[in-house]
Amino acid sequence: MLEQLKREVYEANMELVEKGMVIYTWGNVSGIDRENSLVVIKPSGVDYDVMKPEDMVVVDFDGKVVEGNYKPSSDTATHIVLYKNYPDIGGVVHTHSTWAVTFAQAGMPIPALGTTHADYFYGDIPCTRDLTQQEIEEAYELNTGNVIVETIGTCNPMAIPAIVVKNHGPFAWGKTPAGSVYNAVVMDKVAEMAYKTMTLNPNVSRVQQFLLDKHYNRKHGANAYYGQGSEEH
Amino acid sequence: MLEQLKREVYEANMELVEKGMVIYTWGNVSGIDRENSLVVIKPSGVDYDVMKPEDMVVVDFDGKVVEGNYKPSSDTATHIVLYKNYPDIGGVVHTHSTWAVTFAQAGMPIPALGTTHADYFYGDIPCTRDLTQQEIEEAYELNTGNVIVETIGTCNPMAIPAIVVKNHGPFAWGKTPAGSVYNAVVMDKVAEMAYKTMTLNPNVSRVQQFLLDKHYNRKHGANAYYGQGSEEH
Amino acid sequence: MLEQLKREVYEANMELVEKGMVIYTWGNVSGIDRENSLVVIKPSGVDYDVMKPEDMVVVDFDGKVVEGNYKPSSDTATHIVLYKNYPDIGGVVHTHSTWAVTFAQAGMPIPALGTTHADYFYGDIPCTRDLTQQEIEEAYELNTGNVIVETIGTCNPMAIPAIVVKNHGPFAWGKTPAGSVYNAVVMDKVAEMAYKTMTLNPNVSRVQQFLLDKHYNRKHGANAYYGQGSEEH
Amino acid sequence: MLEQLKREVYEANMELVEKGMVIYTWGNVSGIDRENSLVVIKPSGVDYDVMKPEDMVVVDFDGKVVEGNYKPSSDTATHIVLYKNYPDIGGVVHTHSTWAVTFAQAGMPIPALGTTHADYFYGDIPCTRDLTQQEIEEAYELNTGNVIVETIGTCNPMAIPAIVVKNHGPFAWGKTPAGSVYNAVVMDKVAEMAYKTMTLNPNVSRVQQFLLDKHYNRKHGANAYYGQGSEEH
Repeated sequence: MLEQLKREVYEANMELVEKGMVIYTWGNVSGIDRENSLVVIKPSGVDYDVMKPEDMVVVDFDGKVVEGNYKPSSDTATHIVLYKNYPDIGGVVHTHSTWAVTFAQAGMPIPALGTTHADYFYGDIPCTRDLTQQEIEEAYELNTGNVIVETIGTCNPMAIPAIVVKNHGPFAWGKTPAGSVYNAVVMDKVAEMAYKTMTLNPNVSRVQQFLLDKHYNRKHGANAYYGQGSEEH
Repeated sequence: MLEQLKREVYEANMELVEKGMVIYTWGNVSGIDRENSLVVIKPSGVDYDVMKPEDMVVVDFDGKVVEGNYKPSSDTATHIVLYKNYPDIGGVVHTHSTWAVTFAQAGMPIPALGTTHADYFYGDIPCTRDLTQQEIEEAYELNTGNVIVETIGTCNPMAIPAIVVKNHGPFAWGKTPAGSVYNAVVMDKVAEMAYKTMTLNPNVSRVQQFLLDKHYNRKHGANAYYGQGSEEH
Repeated sequence: MLEQLKREVYEANMELVEKGMVIYTWGNVSGIDRENSLVVIKPSGVDYDVMKPEDMVVVDFDGKVVEGNYKPSSDTATHIVLYKNYPDIGGVVHTHSTWAVTFAQAGMPIPALGTTHADYFYGDIPCTRDLTQQEIEEAYELNTGNVIVETIGTCNPMAIPAIVVKNHGPFAWGKTPAGSVYNAVVMDKVAEMAYKTMTLNPNVSRVQQFLLDKHYNRKHGANAYYGQGSEEH
Repeated sequence: MLEQLKREVYEANMELVEKGMVIYTWGNVSGIDRENSLVVIKPSGVDYDVMKPEDMVVVDFDGKVVEGNYKPSSDTATHIVLYKNYPDIGGVVHTHSTWAVTFAQAGMPIPALGTTHADYFYGDIPCTRDLTQQEIEEAYELNTGNVIVETIGTCNPMAIPAIVVKNHGPFAWGKTPAGSVYNAVVMDKVAEMAYKTMTLNPNVSRVQQFLLDKHYNRKHGANAYYGQGSEEH
């Protein structure tokens, strides 16, 4: 079942390796079949170099395995929370990419310092609060999803399709599994640029609002004029 | 038309990927046919791995497409300003290369700290001022070109063939499209060296003027003695 | 003799090159045949690109060569101390990987700042004290092993299977030679993340104890639920 | 003439590219035929990917070209000063490798902070003083050699076979052209480790003298016990 989506999810997972976002079995990408509310996700702890499209696991909105020979990613519950809350997203990714983890461990948002950031994220990429001991012990992965949703609040999740979870690492999402990986790669790159800028000039200030507006809007929305018309991730 | 120039511009764009200056569709290189005042530039938002020489877009000095199946780079107006103001340049490049962006976001020039810098740039690589809200909203890409020209002022644009645009990123130029990319790669490398030097020794001072003179002049100008006689970019 | 173990040790040594942990002849991995108390280790100073499985050297618990055409690694005595003291380990590795050496030279433990760390190391990766002049001059490699054992004290060596030796570099261990290399690679990655976090935010605090517990325990021990059941290194 | 030495010098130059020490035409390696006091050196400004062994240039101790179709490296005079002053060296290399340049631009020696450094360099890798305007204008490359010799003074040049020239970059030497490149690569690696250590812990102190002695002496000299007996570079 869902052969096409399995292939997309598989390829998006392999792209994480290709782009240097993961080592060993780290990271996981999922995709969703909205019609049937079924999520296809990477199996837990399987090496990328032996993984095949048919190893992807199909789970329902309760996290129960519908099809698959493996256990799904241990972070599956987090992915499902995001799919339930954000009907526009078609793919979710979690990595431990170095620069995004740096901000997660520092407990800091990735600030919007320039146009590279503004081209993809309409403002700072937020950092969640600490989870409480109770939240961690009772339902860790579910509550990781919940704290992401709490942090985003009433903002449009497609305007800043990424977040860092405190002391943990980045999650990103997109219209498709491949789109979520694209956003995760760009997040890590803007995190790298922000780290280097902030250590070079500790008094740096954010990009001006109208420059942020200009760059974001020339790539996104009704009046976008970057690209050939299909650049949205 | 302009098949040879299209190939040069295509190859210079691909060199950006080869040298690690860009990811995804970032960056753009152009070249100029001075006789006809026609600029050949990368199409906007097209993936490097599918791009072909014939996809390059030909525009006139008003930015109007003369030939091509794609929309030209969204930064085309900036390139044209540079060609109009600097008759000696044959190629222009814009990237979001990490180290140069670091200085752009920090709002700082890339200081001339050593001979690696002096071999190519006769002094600091400047950083532009902020654009005003009006400049951004009325004609962003045109005014990006204008603020570059304003910053360079009466200096010789070939003596320091690069700049960082504040909160945005680097532009570089050269005698040819390939030469502009060469200068962009060296700019990023000297930016990297400057960052590391400044974070290791915050009290660092600039290279002595006579050492800067010596290195710049042994590679450039009438009495140059580096190389076999054809090293100018 | 011990052909299978020699191959495992050889492959684990080559993995150090593959993962960028060593240059030239740096680094060494060993494995142990517990039944006969024989250690198989990389020969000293042999280039990785000419090394073959049969070049691995077999030594006994006194460090005497039992079989082999080469001298064993100069760090052999350190490996033996670890095997003698920790009956659960099957492989030991020493490298000069950059990020772990950074903490060794700084004389600082690699602090547990996030879940990437907690997934593999149940707390800070410790840094040993300085060896005394007498310890260095009398039996340097033996005493390097001894100071590691002294630093770990009564802790479980498998809970934090790695250490940095002050002003020197990292040692790691695992259930197998390959497992020890795995732990050395992860140590270097979490050291990189810790360095970047601490230079971005000098006031950073450690990951909360209950988040450390959660991540460590979901991958290790009786109630682990990460992976397909065979992820222990 | 000197076909064997030309090949060695050529291969040592290509090794600079392989090891990431140079980009474009940067860097140069030479070797010497002591019997005839002839130096073989890379041609100036020739691309590595078209360079051939027969392009190496033969010069005498006055820097005059004895054989070759190209002009020799612009740094030839510096190499010759080193060969004249240090009869034990058989190869010299100059690069603009990033980490060593960082210390050159910072005007700081590369401090001996750990055993990685001590394995190859018996103490800090020194940084020269500024050249005077007169020294630069009258005979720049010759005086670069002279200031290196002045800085090393009465020390044994083989005990610390490398230096950084202030605001310029590293020079290294060795028993052979390949050995000089080996030392240049290790210098850049220990410079990287020193930078990271010093930015992590600004109060770091040098490796203890007896640990420096131990590591240096286990690899070098009469009582060395690292390797199989031929590790000297």
